[in-house]
Amino acid sequence: MSAVEDFSKDFYDYPEWNTEKGLPTMVPIEVILPCEPTAGDALYHICISAISLVVMLILAVLARRMKLGDGQKGVPGLLSPVNFLDHTQHKGLAVAVFGVLFCKLFGLVLSPHPLPFTTDTANKQSWMLLSLVYYPLLYYPLLACGTLHNAVGYVLGSLLAWTHFGVLVWQKADCPKTPQIYKYFSLLTSLPQVCCLAFLSFQYPLLLFKGLKGTQKNTANEDLHSSYYRDYVKKILQKKKPCKASTSTEKPTLMDRLTDAAKSYIYTPEPVFRFPLKLAISGVVSFIAVYQMAVVMVTSVLPTLQAVRRGVNEDVTFLLAGFNIILSEDKAEVVRIVIYYMWCVEVCYLSAMTLSCLVNLDMLMRTMVLHRSNLKGLYRGDIYNVYNCQRSIRPSRPALVCWMGFTSFQAAHICLGFLIQTVVFFMCLLIAVFLIVIPVVHGQNLVLMKVLGNMWPFWLVLFLAMVVQHVTAHFCFIRKSAGTRDLDNRGSLFLLTYLLFPVNVLIGVFLGAWRLIITALFNIVHLGRMDISLLNRNVEAFDPAYRCYAHYLKMEVSQSHPVMKAFCGLLLQCAGQDAAGQKARDAEEGIQLVNKEKQQSKVSRSKRARRHWQLLYTLVNNPSLVGSRKHFQHQSNDGFLNGTLNQAPRVGSSKEAGNKEAGNKEAGNKEAEKETQAASN
Amino acid sequence: MSAVEDFSKDFYDYPEWNTEKGLPTMVPIEVILPCEPTAGDALYHICISAISLVVMLILAVLARRMKLGDGQKGVPGLLSPVNFLDHTQHKGLAVAVFGVLFCKLFGLVLSPHPLPFTTDTANKQSWMLLSLVYYPLLYYPLLACGTLHNAVGYVLGSLLAWTHFGVLVWQKADCPKTPQIYKYFSLLTSLPQVCCLAFLSFQYPLLLFKGLKGTQKNTANEDLHSSYYRDYVKKILQKKKPCKASTSTEKPTLMDRLTDAAKSYIYTPEPVFRFPLKLAISGVVSFIAVYQMAVVMVTSVLPTLQAVRRGVNEDVTFLLAGFNIILSEDKAEVVRIVIYYMWCVEVCYLSAMTLSCLVNLDMLMRTMVLHRSNLKGLYRGDIYNVYNCQRSIRPSRPALVCWMGFTSFQAAHICLGFLIQTVVFFMCLLIAVFLIVIPVVHGQNLVLMKVLGNMWPFWLVLFLAMVVQHVTAHFCFIRKSAGTRDLDNRGSLFLLTYLLFPVNVLIGVFLGAWRLIITALFNIVHLGRMDISLLNRNVEAFDPAYRCYAHYLKMEVSQSHPVMKAFCGLLLQCAGQDAAGQKARDAEEGIQLVNKEKQQSKVSRSKRARRHWQLLYTLVNNPSLVGSRKHFQHQSNDGFLNGTLNQAPRVGSSKEAGNKEAGNKEAGNKEAEKETQAASN
Repeated sequence: MSAVEDFSKDFYDYPEWNTEKGLPTMVPIEVILPCEPTAGDALYHICISAISLVVMLILAVLARRMKLGDGQKGVPGLLSPVNFLDHTQHKGLAVAVFGVLFCKLFGLVLSPHPLPFTTDTANKQSWMLLSLVYYPLLYYPLLACGTLHNAVGYVLGSLLAWTHFGVLVWQKADCPKTPQIYKYFSLLTSLPQVCCLAFLSFQYPLLLFKGLKGTQKNTANEDLHSSYYRDYVKKILQKKKPCKASTSTEKPTLMDRLTDAAKSYIYTPEPVFRFPLKLAISGVVSFIAVYQMAVVMVTSVLPTLQAVRRGVNEDVTFLLAGFNIILSEDKAEVVRIVIYYMWCVEVCYLSAMTLSCLVNLDMLMRTMVLHRSNLKGLYRGDIYNVYNCQRSIRPSRPALVCWMGFTSFQAAHICLGFLIQTVVFFMCLLIAVFLIVIPVVHGQNLVLMKVLGNMWPFWLVLFLAMVVQHVTAHFCFIRKSAGTRDLDNRGSLFLLTYLLFPVNVLIGVFLGAWRLIITALFNIVHLGRMDISLLNRNVEAFDPAYRCYAHYLKMEVSQSHPVMKAFCGLLLQCAGQDAAGQKARDAEEGIQLVNKEKQQSKVSRSKRARRHWQLLYTLVNNPSLVGSRKHFQHQSNDGFLNGTLNQAPRVGSSKEAGNKEAGNKEAGNKEAEKETQAASN
Repeated sequence: MSAVEDFSKDFYDYPEWNTEKGLPTMVPIEVILPCEPTAGDALYHICISAISLVVMLILAVLARRMKLGDGQKGVPGLLSPVNFLDHTQHKGLAVAVFGVLFCKLFGLVLSPHPLPFTTDTANKQSWMLLSLVYYPLLYYPLLACGTLHNAVGYVLGSLLAWTHFGVLVWQKADCPKTPQIYKYFSLLTSLPQVCCLAFLSFQYPLLLFKGLKGTQKNTANEDLHSSYYRDYVKKILQKKKPCKASTSTEKPTLMDRLTDAAKSYIYTPEPVFRFPLKLAISGVVSFIAVYQMAVVMVTSVLPTLQAVRRGVNEDVTFLLAGFNIILSEDKAEVVRIVIYYMWCVEVCYLSAMTLSCLVNLDMLMRTMVLHRSNLKGLYRGDIYNVYNCQRSIRPSRPALVCWMGFTSFQAAHICLGFLIQTVVFFMCLLIAVFLIVIPVVHGQNLVLMKVLGNMWPFWLVLFLAMVVQHVTAHFCFIRKSAGTRDLDNRGSLFLLTYLLFPVNVLIGVFLGAWRLIITALFNIVHLGRMDISLLNRNVEAFDPAYRCYAHYLKMEVSQSHPVMKAFCGLLLQCAGQDAAGQKARDAEEGIQLVNKEKQQSKVSRSKRARRHWQLLYTLVNNPSLVGSRKHFQHQSNDGFLNGTLNQAPRVGSSKEAGNKEAGNKEAGNKEAEKETQAASN
């Protein structure tokens, strides 16, 4: 060991890459001592979990009081952390809490002590499983404080977020260097967590401020009262102007198509479109996953490689001689060569890592673009384009399970994809560098080049055969006459086909190798993306990730179709105008109100007729909504709907959190059914 | 070396697997001396190429004489070995010659002397490239003898085939064992060639016999006069009866679907459907490719493995000790274990080989099924179903190049796919045997089992999380009411989604691994098949093999659409009736005749009207034919055709070998155009 250090000291003289001596810079050895922060993890977690419990109790009391006063929100609302099916709410809180949770999860897989209360390493597995339950519960109050839309909740949320944030920053300031993996690993890996907590610490006071100033509306009923759905409907009604008519006649040039392809990989926000909350969360969590994987993979491999490089001395000559590898007669020369090669390996590794980061970030953007186009397509009823087959859009058991797990699965796929991409890119770069770049630059060991060079007659023959086929096909065998193309000189064509059969077999081998490479590369690059299937179009559903995504989309579209929500909002508004004193609160009540209206015969005929037309207009423009109407189930054999709207899926009607009776709704649906019948007559 | 042989002699006592001593049978060493057949390759090839040249000259003289006599067939016909675009001819000759050629090609890649005239190994590459030209020329007369449909040609063909067959069998009988690769390698690898030559030796006399008896019609004009096209049209007209109506209401059971899936992998001939010649050739060549690859891979690896196993002695203990592997204290025990493991490796290799053979043969059958359904789909005009996008079906330069190379590419892909499948299956079997089967059977080294067993709480938690999600989704969160399904208990659903987020990430990792495995396995199994794309449906065309297949189909459908050929045949027949003395010969003349008829005003109106209706009926039932009519190019902006037959591709009109003037044809097309106009008015 001392010999190694003595030797490595000699290399400290080179402050940077020294081309004359051919040696890269050496990184000095540094010993990191274990560091215990002032705010110990165990103590901190005991305190914070107690505080969280108290906060939850206060919130529960508050919720019970609010329930008594208002009759609508209450403890059940507190137990529903966030409405995943509402597109209009502020997404920041939920996204940040999920981000923190994911960081913690990532940390506890690598940490020697997954559960902070104990340092027992014998039962690490059990503690890890316990911590899988502990952390979601720990961060639950951070979400719950926002559910009541109440000043006290915001104050408690601010305090809690500040505590989490303050202690984490304090710990990291106390112990920036830890002996685990790499000195700054712990610091780097906690950065996203710090960002998320900082966001929460800033967001809760902001919400409180807005609440006190009154600029923030009571967001409990925001969903259906939001202008988003109405704007969305307005947008799709405006879009009917055909602006493509002028361009459809001329074919797009190659440049246009390339620009379009490039654009489709860059996410640009569109004016009236909001992502479902789950997609927003999974986008951010995926981003964090890429960051965390990059940090882990850089810090776990690169210091080791550098340490090995630092430890290279003249003993390596004997080691290599043991494998019959003699790089040079001079031992110092051998050391120099080995160190240079190891530096190349490091560079390859870092390049592969950077490449996979870029690929993953671009794939993330592309995913968001595709999510949006798929959602908009399904809203329009373009089921065939999205799924490549007809499917019924309605909630089912597997769809619900896939919906629940989607965000998690997406994060896991990104992690796995990143790992495999890096390994594959690293291998490819290594092969390229050691078989092509280094031999060419140094003019030595040109084994591959020589083999390929010696085969030049072979390449020439293959190339000539390709050229001959293309040229003869163009000039001899295809004849253009009066705008049509037809075969010419069939006899010669058949003769050439026969004579070139053996050469084409050899060309086919290269075609097959190319197919192998391109298929493997495509699948590896897209491994982290759940929104496309990696299998052939006929067996798409066998790809578990794509299957999950398809089910997820079904749930999302069936439960939060913006046009449906806009329609429910419209109904509520009408009801609000009619029965002025009555306060409409959610979609269910909107449907109930239709039922009440039926009993009240004071509604004028003209208003009823107008509503029929509104309904019909909405349905005609959004055929995918037809399926959500109950009578569709019974009337599906009838001519009118079956004929014109045959491909319409079933969209479940919107139902907000809470336990309303099904009876009222059914009555409401029956009413709606009669409405269409009247309108269609 | 002597020690090895001494030791191996001890093992000859075990005639078969000896369970008591735990040692498998040893294969004795056999020394094969180089063998020179009486009919030396060089001499034989000099003679046979001279004979072939003479045969070609005789055929040329004969063809020139026939040309003088008949004015239609001649030397150009002799230079067109086989009409690849005619579905009606006898496929046997072409298939057998291509089979022989492929066997030769396969042999010359492995042979030390690719060109039989020289034994110079220094310029092996150049000789190989020369032999790529030599062999197609050598076997050309075997094809050419059949093109004249003449007794002399059949006699010459019989003689040539008998010579080839006789000499090959003589050579193999002289030297059944050769030192190359494996003693019987040369014999095994020439079996398909022997079969193909035997078929030719039998087929030519049969053709001669039929020709003399007069049962064989003059097949020169067989194509359009064949009843195949008429039968095909009759079949599709009959098929209009909807026999599916009764089953469409009831959903197919799982059993039915499984049976259907299994059936779709088994090729059963259909009454009225003939494969294009190229597909028939590529099917047979693929089958030969599978056989040859299997022979090469078994004979090149298995004898080596057996030799290594035979050479295992107590020295292996030291070798293993060098890697710090100590299997046992007793040296004899170590030898026994090593020999047992090597036997396992052999068994794995053979199993992998058998598996890939079965997979490839099944894939071959499946390919034939898919070829047929794709062709029938395209004949019907179902372009969207086959290609998943709209394409114009007309010949183009890349399509023609792909068409020329299709058979070769298919064979090369099968070879490459077989190689990779065997390697991958071998790896998988090795891992399964050495990590699971052997440890479980012997109860030792249960490393993997122990690791998995120690993680049981982890598996239990993941399993429970899955079960909880499925059960709650079924019983709590989905409510069925009056035939519709809707979400229930949204609050609890959101809470469960949040709490299970970390566990789902872990489940997601396994889902990702499963995705990786299933995708890789699917692509490796289907690597040899060109008829499906291995990429995602949106980028299908980037798969070079699938792109080639798609182009190939375009060519095949545009040039030999059976309905189009039936129509041309019908026109020829009518012309034959009208102008009795005039002999109609090919499709082109059929179209010319329409032109002539126009000038002859003696054609009755009723006949013309009937022809209009025939044309219209054909076009309505085969929209893909509309594009092949010239006026479609000019009228495509008009309402009638554009509106109703918008998706119709362009099908090139049939044109047989020969240099007819385009002018007549254009006139014919204009006539046809007027016909449709008249019919549509």
